[in-house]
Amino acid sequence: LHVFSCNSNPQLAREIAEHIGVPLGKAVVGRFSDGEIHVRLDESVRGSDVYIIQSTCHPVNQNLMELLVMVDACKRASARTINVVIPYYGYARQDRKTRARDPITSKLVANLIETAGADRIISMDLHATQIQGFFDIPVDHLLGVPILGDYFRDKGLEDVVVVSPDHGGVIRARKLAERLESPIAIIDKRRPEPNVAEVMNIVGDVKGKRCIIIDDIIDTAGTITLASNALLDYGAKEVYACCTHPVFSGPAIDRIRESSIKEMVVTNTIPLSEEKQLDKTHVLSVAS
Amino acid sequence: LHVFSCNSNPQLAREIAEHIGVPLGKAVVGRFSDGEIHVRLDESVRGSDVYIIQSTCHPVNQNLMELLVMVDACKRASARTINVVIPYYGYARQDRKTRARDPITSKLVANLIETAGADRIISMDLHATQIQGFFDIPVDHLLGVPILGDYFRDKGLEDVVVVSPDHGGVIRARKLAERLESPIAIIDKRRPEPNVAEVMNIVGDVKGKRCIIIDDIIDTAGTITLASNALLDYGAKEVYACCTHPVFSGPAIDRIRESSIKEMVVTNTIPLSEEKQLDKTHVLSVAS
Ligand SMILES: Nc1ncnc2c1ncn2[C@@H]1O[C@H](COP(=O)(O)O)[C@@H](O)[C@H]1O
Ligand SMILES: Nc1ncnc2c1ncn2[C@@H]1O[C@H](COP(=O)(O)O)[C@@H](O)[C@H]1O
Repeated sequence: LHVFSCNSNPQLAREIAEHIGVPLGKAVVGRFSDGEIHVRLDESVRGSDVYIIQSTCHPVNQNLMELLVMVDACKRASARTINVVIPYYGYARQDRKTRARDPITSKLVANLIETAGADRIISMDLHATQIQGFFDIPVDHLLGVPILGDYFRDKGLEDVVVVSPDHGGVIRARKLAERLESPIAIIDKRRPEPNVAEVMNIVGDVKGKRCIIIDDIIDTAGTITLASNALLDYGAKEVYACCTHPVFSGPAIDRIRESSIKEMVVTNTIPLSEEKQLDKTHVLSVAS
Repeated sequence: LHVFSCNSNPQLAREIAEHIGVPLGKAVVGRFSDGEIHVRLDESVRGSDVYIIQSTCHPVNQNLMELLVMVDACKRASARTINVVIPYYGYARQDRKTRARDPITSKLVANLIETAGADRIISMDLHATQIQGFFDIPVDHLLGVPILGDYFRDKGLEDVVVVSPDHGGVIRARKLAERLESPIAIIDKRRPEPNVAEVMNIVGDVKGKRCIIIDDIIDTAGTITLASNALLDYGAKEVYACCTHPVFSGPAIDRIRESSIKEMVVTNTIPLSEEKQLDKTHVLSVAS
């Protein structure tokens, strides 16, 4: 068994390797002077089961290509099986044609990874579970809810209500609520008329409660920070937010810093650069 | 017939569209806040022959992914055929295993482009002609020599000798020499002992001649600038250099500026950013 890391998330790769008790495989994933990716395996993988760990987070195209070249190198070096661990699967939100003539990049990426030679995928909280079906190879789909749930349970909060920020996230919210033995609430965004700001109604009782908003991806953090304000307007005592994948692009960090959110709990599927770390952010490891 | 451009070389795309007398297709190739590529076709391509123009030059992974997503969008929009014009084919130099456990990224890229849905490739001066065979779809392979040859012929230089900077480039040099009705010379690099600097010997007569060094790709410009010095040492009167693909990465521009090369003639398969334009550089268009 060989575990290789590309460059997107070396810290998580080290933790995973430590957890299963094998050293990280020796390989160089570098760049030529013109920016082309250059991979060199420094140990034989002939006949072995190879695990490659790479999140396709920002810079997504570079990280994806590193992964593809690494798979190609392992395939040509006669690995027995190539298992691709993608803690965060980029392009997951382009999973359907929302308009005529849209690409379905999420499916394209699945095809590219298979074409390169992957035998099996291991990923976490795919934005749409349909993405499993985009692959013709086995996909192990892990969930962040158990890890997030344990954290909040160990915190011993009382009067908790788990909040889904939209209708699409209700199943996830329900799973977290079961672990915490708490009720759920749903934020119901509605635009009363075109060109009028959205109104956030809340379905469920949050008055005097500690709210935990859960989402799969937090990207620009617009929804989540507005949701937090709406919950407090409706009488919530305090608001926590959590997600598996902290994309945190554009204005996200400023918004979270200045928001009414008390604590932001995320996992390490995407590493947070130093500028993206806030005192109120707590990172849980998915290595195990 | 629809001609679309991605973002690597819009100027060349405009020239090509103008040359064949059709307007460039309306499409947006943009980015989401997290850096993911976002493509939208703003006109119907149902049942038509689509040409997509994109060099996979720096930033190569981004440009490649733009191309793949664009092909996916055209395929899903029911284009009849998808013809991919790749003036400069990136990753061409990773065309074989130079060591055990090397990837063959050039073949991987061919597979990715086919997987996305391309029906035909049009490219120029592929670093290795074997790359045509990496595809299972037709590849039209165009050459830069006629354009470069016409330029030097129109210049009316006398006492010309065409120089290949290495043994791999002799066929290309011979083709240019035929057009200019001139002899050729070859630079024979040799390392007398390990860890001793290479010596450049010259096979052929360059004394008192005007030398034109020709290569397919000029990347860091190390070889070409040393070759120029060697030719002058051997008594050449002046040295011109030309290539199809001006990659010009790392120290290339400084080296060319300070070199003994009198004029550097390139084509526009790769656009030269402003910092990369020198007074002694002359750019020829391959649009026709
Ligand atoms: N990287 C991205 N950033 C922001 N929006 C995206 C991204 N990728 C896809 N989308 C859009 O997000 C929507 C899908 O999100 P959802 O409704 O949450 O599944 C679609 O309209 C996509 O066009
Ligand atoms: N982007 C690149 N920049 C520099 N060298 C490269 C690049 N891609 C491949 N190579 C190396 O260039 C050599 C092939 O060049 P050549 O012998 O001219 O075909 C191989 O040793 C490759 O590892």
